[in-house]
Amino acid sequence: MRRCAIALVHHPVLDGQGAVVTSAVTNLDVHDLARTARTYGASDYFVVHPIAAQRDLVERIRLHWTEGSSSRRIPDRREALTVLRVVASLDGALDSLGGRGGVEVWVTAARELGPTLSFAEARGRLEEEGKPVLVVFGTAWGLARSVVDAADALLEPIRAARGEYNHLSVRSACAIAMDRLLGARGAQSGQPRATPTSRSS
Amino acid sequence: MRRCAIALVHHPVLDGQGAVVTSAVTNLDVHDLARTARTYGASDYFVVHPIAAQRDLVERIRLHWTEGSSSRRIPDRREALTVLRVVASLDGALDSLGGRGGVEVWVTAARELGPTLSFAEARGRLEEEGKPVLVVFGTAWGLARSVVDAADALLEPIRAARGEYNHLSVRSACAIAMDRLLGARGAQSGQPRATPTSRSS
Repeated sequence: MRRCAIALVHHPVLDGQGAVVTSAVTNLDVHDLARTARTYGASDYFVVHPIAAQRDLVERIRLHWTEGSSSRRIPDRREALTVLRVVASLDGALDSLGGRGGVEVWVTAARELGPTLSFAEARGRLEEEGKPVLVVFGTAWGLARSVVDAADALLEPIRAARGEYNHLSVRSACAIAMDRLLGARGAQSGQPRATPTSRSS
Repeated sequence: MRRCAIALVHHPVLDGQGAVVTSAVTNLDVHDLARTARTYGASDYFVVHPIAAQRDLVERIRLHWTEGSSSRRIPDRREALTVLRVVASLDGALDSLGGRGGVEVWVTAARELGPTLSFAEARGRLEEEGKPVLVVFGTAWGLARSVVDAADALLEPIRAARGEYNHLSVRSACAIAMDRLLGARGAQSGQPRATPTSRSS
């Protein structure tokens, strides 16, 4: 089983017209992707932002939930936020996983941008031994082409069984991708198990 | 193929201590669940709230995105929000689907509350002919026991392949559940298709 981490990129990403822009941090992205990462066993959730004031904001959110009053109020949330790392660039995330040569980078896109790695194949690759995998998600209208071109693989777009409409939030897309890669499947499913868990929106 | 709809309940739901409460509307719940519903072909997304001022708020959000300035700025979002219905109670949602006797109600929970319907079995049932299915999600710490007890089935809790931690947001849980029920699987996966799609967080 390989180590798997996720990254949420705020620059370089696309706007609605295809221009490369920097997006603002969304509070619930910080929470939702951390909770998804922790639930599916990702070792790290990198929030990537080039602007120091935005990184400081994410760091304040992190501390509020890991050491501040909310860490005592919702311990499950504290545990989720412990996987959060705040970095200035994707290189920063790669460095902390051992450097570009030691990491396999899988990018995600809602659009068809070229040959893709299917989730079934990707799931199998994660089960093998190998380099850590960093799964990269883009905010706004998705990752800039430069990020996609520099990756080792492009995961297939998430699709419903029927219909062509596909306009998921990055919070939803990340949750679905992690479930397809690392979710319980088959015989495990449907068997009642007694475990202490909780959900708070 | 059956008609499938989803509902997000703000009352009766549980707080962190297990008391029955009413939760406040979260703007991104309105957006994310609408986008998930539309992507996976759900006919309706019912936001259930007993307080008129909260329903008015959701209605204002809906109009801003379906008829206001943002409907022109992001047409994909407009299309998602067209599945949104604002109702005062689950009965209101059931009435608009043809009444309690004409609907199969499937509730969701992060905890183990009793015998569950597996996603594999549920997926198969949706493919058959039959009554419309309403999949019900709770905000806060999940649906009150009264809602669970009145349902026709309880879907299995979402789990990762490894680990017992499970603290997803309702936005993530809904996305994963819909993908397990209605997502593309198997041979369709990994085949590049040229379709116009977009993502904006």
